[in-house]
Amino acid sequence: MGKSRLEAFSDGVIAILITILVLELKVPRGIDAQALRPLWPVFATYVMSFVYLGIYWNNHHHMLHAVHQVNGRILWANLHLLFWLSLVPFVTGWMGENHFAPLPTAVYGAVLLLAAISYTLLQNTIVAHEGAQSTLAAAVGRDWKGKLSMLLYLLAIPLAFVHRGIAVGLYWLVAAIWFIPDRRIESRLAR
Amino acid sequence: MGKSRLEAFSDGVIAILITILVLELKVPRGIDAQALRPLWPVFATYVMSFVYLGIYWNNHHHMLHAVHQVNGRILWANLHLLFWLSLVPFVTGWMGENHFAPLPTAVYGAVLLLAAISYTLLQNTIVAHEGAQSTLAAAVGRDWKGKLSMLLYLLAIPLAFVHRGIAVGLYWLVAAIWFIPDRRIESRLAR
Amino acid sequence: MGKSRLEAFSDGVIAILITILVLELKVPRGIDAQALRPLWPVFATYVMSFVYLGIYWNNHHHMLHAVHQVNGRILWANLHLLFWLSLVPFVTGWMGENHFAPLPTAVYGAVLLLAAISYTLLQNTIVAHEGAQSTLAAAVGRDWKGKLSMLLYLLAIPLAFVHRGIAVGLYWLVAAIWFIPDRRIESRLAR
Amino acid sequence: MGKSRLEAFSDGVIAILITILVLELKVPRGIDAQALRPLWPVFATYVMSFVYLGIYWNNHHHMLHAVHQVNGRILWANLHLLFWLSLVPFVTGWMGENHFAPLPTAVYGAVLLLAAISYTLLQNTIVAHEGAQSTLAAAVGRDWKGKLSMLLYLLAIPLAFVHRGIAVGLYWLVAAIWFIPDRRIESRLAR
Repeated sequence: MGKSRLEAFSDGVIAILITILVLELKVPRGIDAQALRPLWPVFATYVMSFVYLGIYWNNHHHMLHAVHQVNGRILWANLHLLFWLSLVPFVTGWMGENHFAPLPTAVYGAVLLLAAISYTLLQNTIVAHEGAQSTLAAAVGRDWKGKLSMLLYLLAIPLAFVHRGIAVGLYWLVAAIWFIPDRRIESRLAR
Repeated sequence: MGKSRLEAFSDGVIAILITILVLELKVPRGIDAQALRPLWPVFATYVMSFVYLGIYWNNHHHMLHAVHQVNGRILWANLHLLFWLSLVPFVTGWMGENHFAPLPTAVYGAVLLLAAISYTLLQNTIVAHEGAQSTLAAAVGRDWKGKLSMLLYLLAIPLAFVHRGIAVGLYWLVAAIWFIPDRRIESRLAR
Repeated sequence: MGKSRLEAFSDGVIAILITILVLELKVPRGIDAQALRPLWPVFATYVMSFVYLGIYWNNHHHMLHAVHQVNGRILWANLHLLFWLSLVPFVTGWMGENHFAPLPTAVYGAVLLLAAISYTLLQNTIVAHEGAQSTLAAAVGRDWKGKLSMLLYLLAIPLAFVHRGIAVGLYWLVAAIWFIPDRRIESRLAR
Repeated sequence: MGKSRLEAFSDGVIAILITILVLELKVPRGIDAQALRPLWPVFATYVMSFVYLGIYWNNHHHMLHAVHQVNGRILWANLHLLFWLSLVPFVTGWMGENHFAPLPTAVYGAVLLLAAISYTLLQNTIVAHEGAQSTLAAAVGRDWKGKLSMLLYLLAIPLAFVHRGIAVGLYWLVAAIWFIPDRRIESRLAR
């Protein structure tokens, strides 16, 4: 079965999620600079979640690029990833409106962790389908970036209760690690 | 006429519906675990509706895969299916916010039933167009899964007034039946 | 220039509009049949607007099917059509929540009229680009369906102030005229 | 790497943004002409933002048309553009609901300026990838339209505090400059 509809559906869902995020930025009542001030934490989380969804879209794009065919198992592994990503606007709103309070910040990390796990499951499902000799299998390798990210989320979640800055800093660190799309796949494909 | 725009439009509508669902999860005011508690029934219905829309997308994907051309009749049968699916976020919100009260739970089942009927109508319209010898006609066969689902919905709707757990259990049972995408089509196509 | 992105963008906008419509169906507070009763006029307008957007999508699909290339002028004529369609959720909500009060019902008709005019303009722009000998020019012919629709809207708008039923009846009449997608194009293409 | 998913994702995001705009047009309570009056400034900003997003979509369409392949850097430059565009509904709502008050009108211009800068960055990234001899590089040339637009935004932002009409007039002037899609690319491609 072709992969075009899987790509189109995932593009659609991620495009909508990234746009729904902005609905959390409620239009303020006032018309002076004061009116914008309470929006800063919401705006800061908006930027972070936008970057995260952008990273997922980029990596999804790269991963699917190395895929030739999909099956029912891959469709569901993909929906599983989309499920956790679909909770990003909710946790973004909760964390942003509460100025990075401990529990919302920890739950935000938990959703990121579950998205990372589901991404890894999708990747493994595709590798199992494509075979250990495939471009994707070679490009992913031992997937240290994926494992490091999950470790950092696991650290950040309890640390959100110590100091919000540590957790948020770790989330940005993971984003920075992934900011550059998976060069491994681009370079493998170039050969 | 080609089927690509029918697929793209359906992907778009289902992607938006699956994402609009999450808007029912309103950001809570509090910042402790208590604040999340009232969200559990809403979250549980969210998961169920997400799975249902995922099933419809998967099966739609599989069904259209076996189709070569579409006509005006198929376009309308498809819009009819999308109409009933478009009511899913509404009934999800109503059932979730009211903790699976009898009437909302029955209406949720009625919408699922009407979606199932419209899916069957779409399937029949396509089979009529493709011919009785087509891959799809052979794959669908006597469609016992479709008929069983409708029977279970018909049981669940009155039973929602007896005990909410029975109706919700039956909805999950139907979801489980369909969880695996239509292997019949995959295996027919493989020949 | 190819037409695929024009199709994809229009599919996206119409898919979102048709789904945003359902947001006007606000989840009721009560859990009995009484709670649903005030929703009936909103639901009735929802059905009508869903059918109208479905008709536009179908006809757009058919029209673009007969097109080979697009230019900047066609892109803007298409955006102009999408602009008037984008107001459909707004007027649907206004008419539905006010139980088909005269002014909202007339404004609903005015938006339908402007959408019909912009559709005709798009059609003329494409015919001008494709040439008078094109499949589309032959299929459209003297476009009596388009002209009749506009006449009926022009009748319905003032009659909304006489009796709401007349205007709504005329809107449904136009929908019925267009319900069957443009056979002319299908039959022309079949030759 | 192919450009089709980049196009599809951008189409999706811009289609959603252009449709989310209309959610700022809140359904009025009254049913007479008075009820519509307070909506005029919101409607006027809606039209302006619709035209701006239409212009960005058209130009994006034209620019990508001249592109053959994309890389990770282009994906991020494109997401950067989408980020600033995603703030358009927010600033549209703020400016419209406050009848073009100085600060909201200036912030609207600032978002347009940042979108213009990110569009230029995307253009430069693509030209760097395609090479100085490419169709796009030749079509863009010295990009006086892009530079003039940014200059006009820079003028409009402080002038919003002098008189709202000047800033809004300048925004419409920039829109008028871009209304005709980039003929340069069309004519270059025609050779």
